[in-house]
Amino acid sequence: MTKISGFSKLSKLDKINWVCDNYLSENSNAKDIITQYLNDDKKLQKLHDEFAENTISNYYLPFGVAPNFCIDGEMFCIPMVIEESSVVAAASKAAKFWLDKGGFKTKVLNTTKVGQVHFKFSGDFNKLKTLFDEQKSKFFEDASSITKNMEKRGGGILDIQLVDKTELLSSYYQLHCTFETVDAMGANFINSCLEQFGKTLEDIYQPEFDVEVILCILSNYVPECLVRAEVSCPLHLLGKTEKEALNFAQRFKYAIDIANVEPYRAVTHNKGIMNGIDAVVLATGNDFRAIEACAHAYASKEGRYKSLTHASIVDDVFRFWIDVPIAVGTVGGLTSLHPLVKVALQMLNNPNAKDLMKIIAVAGLAQNFAAVNSLVTTGIQKGHMKMHLLNILNQFEATPEEKEQAIEYFKTHTATHSEAVDFITRIRK
Amino acid sequence: MTKISGFSKLSKLDKINWVCDNYLSENSNAKDIITQYLNDDKKLQKLHDEFAENTISNYYLPFGVAPNFCIDGEMFCIPMVIEESSVVAAASKAAKFWLDKGGFKTKVLNTTKVGQVHFKFSGDFNKLKTLFDEQKSKFFEDASSITKNMEKRGGGILDIQLVDKTELLSSYYQLHCTFETVDAMGANFINSCLEQFGKTLEDIYQPEFDVEVILCILSNYVPECLVRAEVSCPLHLLGKTEKEALNFAQRFKYAIDIANVEPYRAVTHNKGIMNGIDAVVLATGNDFRAIEACAHAYASKEGRYKSLTHASIVDDVFRFWIDVPIAVGTVGGLTSLHPLVKVALQMLNNPNAKDLMKIIAVAGLAQNFAAVNSLVTTGIQKGHMKMHLLNILNQFEATPEEKEQAIEYFKTHTATHSEAVDFITRIRK
Repeated sequence: MTKISGFSKLSKLDKINWVCDNYLSENSNAKDIITQYLNDDKKLQKLHDEFAENTISNYYLPFGVAPNFCIDGEMFCIPMVIEESSVVAAASKAAKFWLDKGGFKTKVLNTTKVGQVHFKFSGDFNKLKTLFDEQKSKFFEDASSITKNMEKRGGGILDIQLVDKTELLSSYYQLHCTFETVDAMGANFINSCLEQFGKTLEDIYQPEFDVEVILCILSNYVPECLVRAEVSCPLHLLGKTEKEALNFAQRFKYAIDIANVEPYRAVTHNKGIMNGIDAVVLATGNDFRAIEACAHAYASKEGRYKSLTHASIVDDVFRFWIDVPIAVGTVGGLTSLHPLVKVALQMLNNPNAKDLMKIIAVAGLAQNFAAVNSLVTTGIQKGHMKMHLLNILNQFEATPEEKEQAIEYFKTHTATHSEAVDFITRIRK
Repeated sequence: MTKISGFSKLSKLDKINWVCDNYLSENSNAKDIITQYLNDDKKLQKLHDEFAENTISNYYLPFGVAPNFCIDGEMFCIPMVIEESSVVAAASKAAKFWLDKGGFKTKVLNTTKVGQVHFKFSGDFNKLKTLFDEQKSKFFEDASSITKNMEKRGGGILDIQLVDKTELLSSYYQLHCTFETVDAMGANFINSCLEQFGKTLEDIYQPEFDVEVILCILSNYVPECLVRAEVSCPLHLLGKTEKEALNFAQRFKYAIDIANVEPYRAVTHNKGIMNGIDAVVLATGNDFRAIEACAHAYASKEGRYKSLTHASIVDDVFRFWIDVPIAVGTVGGLTSLHPLVKVALQMLNNPNAKDLMKIIAVAGLAQNFAAVNSLVTTGIQKGHMKMHLLNILNQFEATPEEKEQAIEYFKTHTATHSEAVDFITRIRK
């Protein structure tokens, strides 16, 4: 048993030593590997250490860029943070493809955020409702010290509604609250408001009614914080000949239709979209778990898990678009702390939250276009394995000559991980 | 317009210069910031550059550790990569809480992976089916060069089924294929098999039937690649008094019940679970978009988006568990390339894929326990803002004295981002 008390209070070096002594004793290089990732600039390193707890090193994710994005007539070079090969290349390819076809068009449909106070109550709902309606303004008043600054920036509490959920769960009621948080992701603001609402709720109803607040928390499900991105062009631009163009468009649309009816496909289809979305979310210091949870729940909102993108061919025009909820901030949190996040935002011309929603949706759509394009033409493996092969070759510290040999060989052979390993072993014999 | 051709072929330095000249000209420090994150070890840096395309820097995510996890009787210190404050602290707290109550118990329920060949066909399904059944072995034979190595490791193709999907989409059929990929995530293996199945399908049916393969691709939806993690203890261990313990358990269970019936809550509830899951997925070099997509689709499988965790109180025993599909690998991909990933896996005693599924599920369950625990007791903001406050103070380069003052002040005041900014501005006047 390797139990420890007070670990979090140890210095970083002592933490590293403890981990190495207790869990990495078989690898004498472990400490060197952990520390070789630390930045020489001690102040910068301390800043990164303090983003989370028990930090012992920096985990590198590649910070890449995808140029040539034309969004609503403006040119962008999009920063992308992702460890998966092919994603940045695919985004760049899609950007260039659409560049001379009018680029990407976007529209923020809404920016409403959500939070809820969940509580138990076992009395007469009508009485509860009457009292709530009478005292509704008190919720706003009691939260005024929290909302003051947000209101100055044009945001605040939009509405508070009392909802009866007892059909789903015995004694379950909620305050369903909506917020506008402008350029902040708004999690702390919303949670602070909600915790105050919980107190106000108990103030209003106790002791006359037995109201028990269970939990107060923002919802990451924000179906109304929605953005649309789209591309469209005359059909004939999609191929060298009209026949080729029509064939491509029809196969492409059919692939989207499949993702719309088959959850096994939709999950992977949307996963590819999230490759693009998360890469920009990470680069701009936002929380990808929040974006992921919301996007996938949104994909399942009609009772069956569906595609987030859609395609149509009408009057010889091909159109491809995404509607996706994206709650992000461009102030607060990591956006103002992480030096590379600041640079990423500058690279995007310091967008406000709405602008960033648009750029992120475009990255998702571009990613999906590139993926489906590959899938309905050459297949996904050709491009993917080329990148993956390089990684495998690096693992074996292949020389430039060996790399060339391997790339040549796998032009005509199916490149799996084990085949690549076999190949490199073989040529070295 | 800042259009560029051949960007990917530029050297890294030329890429950085192009981005700085064209998109960061207003920030004269941009280049310094981008390059200060590069590693001095050129060979190591090159390795990281080649994980993805157009890489210009390293994006740091905190690499932290959560000690004191007892899983199936064995002690673990879990590596976690996450930029969000409180997550590693919460995991550590939950680990310690359960350490003297028997720890975490786990079970891998299944490890089946999925892939599909999606195709169009407009003839007689019975004839298609008859021919498929007659020629089924040909699919396995034609893929034998791809499956050979996987079979040596105990994996391979499990089954191939012909499925009629025409009720959902005109002319839509599929080969629904299942795989065992042992300790590999298996994406390349599965996709290579599927692309071969697509060729075999056309070989078998052409020219007698008009079969058009649309796309061949693995599914990230793997509801049968499932793991369970749980904790349980006698009710009275959950509080100082029996009454306190019962109250806590009931509130906790009610919070889980709410997440089960209310999608707005379920999304955030599961988002918190994914904080823990993704942190380990990242640290061990796996693909968090795949895990996210699958987990959330799984949460929606019954037609309404639900909680991934469950709680029960039966015979004075409190039980809390998660069933979650997790498809990960411990060989191939980044797991064998990224030096820090190798260390993370060593820290976990070099787990096979099943062991890693267990550890990841435990991290998710622990995270959820800590979050719900906070929510139904003190509220989420108290602990969260303490961490967040430190980040804000760092942003203002607060001195140790200023930090102390702020922590003291916000013990009795609601700490929002703007309140913290106001405070630091105020004390400096």
